[in-house]
Amino acid sequence: MKNNGITYPKGFKASGVACGLKKNGKKDLALIFSDVNAVAAAVFTTNIVKGHSLQLSMEYINNDATRAMIINSGNANACTGESGLKNAREITQTVSQYLGCSPEQILINSTGVIGVPLKMDYILPSIKKTVEALSYNGGIDAVEAIMTTDTFPKHVTCEFELNGNQIKLGGMAKGSGMIHPNMATMIGVITSDINISKELLDKALKHVVNSSFNRISVDGDTSVCDMVAAIANGQAGNEKITKENKDYLCFVENLQDVCAKLSRMIAMDGEGATKLIEIKIEGALTEQDAYNIVNAVAKSPLVKTAMFGEDANWGRILTAAGYSGANFDPDKIDIYIGDLIVCNKGSAVNFDEAKAKNILMEKEINILINLNQGIFEDRMWTCDFSYDYVKINGSYRT
Amino acid sequence: MKNNGITYPKGFKASGVACGLKKNGKKDLALIFSDVNAVAAAVFTTNIVKGHSLQLSMEYINNDATRAMIINSGNANACTGESGLKNAREITQTVSQYLGCSPEQILINSTGVIGVPLKMDYILPSIKKTVEALSYNGGIDAVEAIMTTDTFPKHVTCEFELNGNQIKLGGMAKGSGMIHPNMATMIGVITSDINISKELLDKALKHVVNSSFNRISVDGDTSVCDMVAAIANGQAGNEKITKENKDYLCFVENLQDVCAKLSRMIAMDGEGATKLIEIKIEGALTEQDAYNIVNAVAKSPLVKTAMFGEDANWGRILTAAGYSGANFDPDKIDIYIGDLIVCNKGSAVNFDEAKAKNILMEKEINILINLNQGIFEDRMWTCDFSYDYVKINGSYRT
Repeated sequence: MKNNGITYPKGFKASGVACGLKKNGKKDLALIFSDVNAVAAAVFTTNIVKGHSLQLSMEYINNDATRAMIINSGNANACTGESGLKNAREITQTVSQYLGCSPEQILINSTGVIGVPLKMDYILPSIKKTVEALSYNGGIDAVEAIMTTDTFPKHVTCEFELNGNQIKLGGMAKGSGMIHPNMATMIGVITSDINISKELLDKALKHVVNSSFNRISVDGDTSVCDMVAAIANGQAGNEKITKENKDYLCFVENLQDVCAKLSRMIAMDGEGATKLIEIKIEGALTEQDAYNIVNAVAKSPLVKTAMFGEDANWGRILTAAGYSGANFDPDKIDIYIGDLIVCNKGSAVNFDEAKAKNILMEKEINILINLNQGIFEDRMWTCDFSYDYVKINGSYRT
Repeated sequence: MKNNGITYPKGFKASGVACGLKKNGKKDLALIFSDVNAVAAAVFTTNIVKGHSLQLSMEYINNDATRAMIINSGNANACTGESGLKNAREITQTVSQYLGCSPEQILINSTGVIGVPLKMDYILPSIKKTVEALSYNGGIDAVEAIMTTDTFPKHVTCEFELNGNQIKLGGMAKGSGMIHPNMATMIGVITSDINISKELLDKALKHVVNSSFNRISVDGDTSVCDMVAAIANGQAGNEKITKENKDYLCFVENLQDVCAKLSRMIAMDGEGATKLIEIKIEGALTEQDAYNIVNAVAKSPLVKTAMFGEDANWGRILTAAGYSGANFDPDKIDIYIGDLIVCNKGSAVNFDEAKAKNILMEKEINILINLNQGIFEDRMWTCDFSYDYVKINGSYRT
């Protein structure tokens, strides 16, 4: 079934159960299992502080016969001292015993509050239940079990044909605070039944993450548990992809599509967000300039509150570009909100405020900044900054 | 009188009138005038986009016989095309005619909304009134006239003795959104009757700005009109300071005091702020590491919302340090909220939540991050992130 997310590709089971880490009794333990040995690749947070579960995955990602991934929400298993890594090891050990593989074949991550020891007496007894609940329709249970402040589950599927073989991809992700490059400050898992070498899966993932998960910003904070993993089990039966040929490029394109859709969902569901905002930069002198500007504008609390207030305050957009560190001539810059030009060659345009308001009342807003100076461009998704962002984050631990 | 701010030092008059730029009829045009030629120094925004009034001051600051400074609020005179600089020139021209000096002897700045042409028909006729209102007690009127979203006027005075001469300093500043280094994203004016060379006044100002106005962060945005000016008219009668001697150091210390007090006031009055937060870093391996961490923590929306919610969520502090780009070993880091240790050697401490709550309920909160790895330290002032920040900034233009 299409809406199964990560269990849409052939040979993947998943489950999600409530083990008690979430105080509200919702699902908080997700398991993904491939029927056969799979290759896996992952991108990890660049934060110098790293969660203990994530650290173990950084070790286990080197295994070339991955079978499963276990993720808990409700606790980040971070900054808890020596017990943190020990607990992560114990979880993978227990999972491996039930699944009949070795711990190194299991990826693990945790998301939630930092600095509180994992309640192992909640998790360990629930692992058996999680394994027993594994199902080819379990994708939706798994994505629910990784949610924290997310308001909706984020999953997506796609498929394409490769020389007569149908290749399927499934993806799930969770946001939604602490979303900022690099890396995308969330957990994402993409499964596929494609037959591909570990090296090329890794290359493909790193390539697409850069223009998807690394191009979303909710609040500029980069979490200690951010990770995107891709697992491919070869069950589609295509000839193994070992070169960067046409088949590889076809896979990359579909992987990009899955990651971009998940990224947009994360930005749209930023904590307290009421709007998805896409910021595009064109005409920059260098790639770095384009990135610096898109990044500064997407992060600016003043831009984000103006969007919440549906106020076409383009001066704040120009201001953010100005302090971004990018090199440009302010007198050449054009700014569009939707299809409405609001700043022309660095100066105010006497635009129709009612039309601007109509554009800003939409759920998705496009901002285009054309520097008119070079050929480089970039794009980032962000969201507005609302009262609810403050409310949600003012009392997260309690 | 002490509470006169910038008119406390000998030989300075000031005034503040309402010319109509502020829709609510409050004062919006401030003038400062020295009885005699003075030396002036200034630090300007590093934003690549610069307001037109500020651009003119960047030219006129080179004059070595400054007499006055005019500042309007309610409009930033920025991004308005060629007319912006023309208007700024016309204002200084008109002021100079009334004051009997040349336009180059007048500094100018504007603060408020970006991209809207200055209403010259409001300003020009009011200049005469502003000149006529000049008074040795006018400091308080001037500071009121530069306020935008400030909830209280920010002014301060101090004095010290130099070889039998009493030296006075007065300062005023406005915040309070778009406050972030560099530069301090606000307007600050410091007057003194000290006799000092232009070169040393410049050196002293740049030195103290770095540890005062460049160490406050309200929302991470750096404005296009930020400027701090210092004007010294020599009326105290001390022997002219032309070397970095004991007298100079004494002046620097007092200038530092004035700037630090104004900076704290700006952070305390950050838009929607309910608390002043002082972030201190100790034990860093390099000066840059200390700065990177203090900057990341002070900017983090997640830290700032936690402070608003009075939630001792130290995991967010550690997370921000982690993505700051600084080099450190997370396993050596200690974090204190007030005098309460909440993170010891990178791990959770089982601290008294009630005590933490009591500390966080205060109006001023001190956060100390000791990296325990080197000798470098830094300090920054910021504020919490509240519902009102969103409210104020969601509808600034309207």
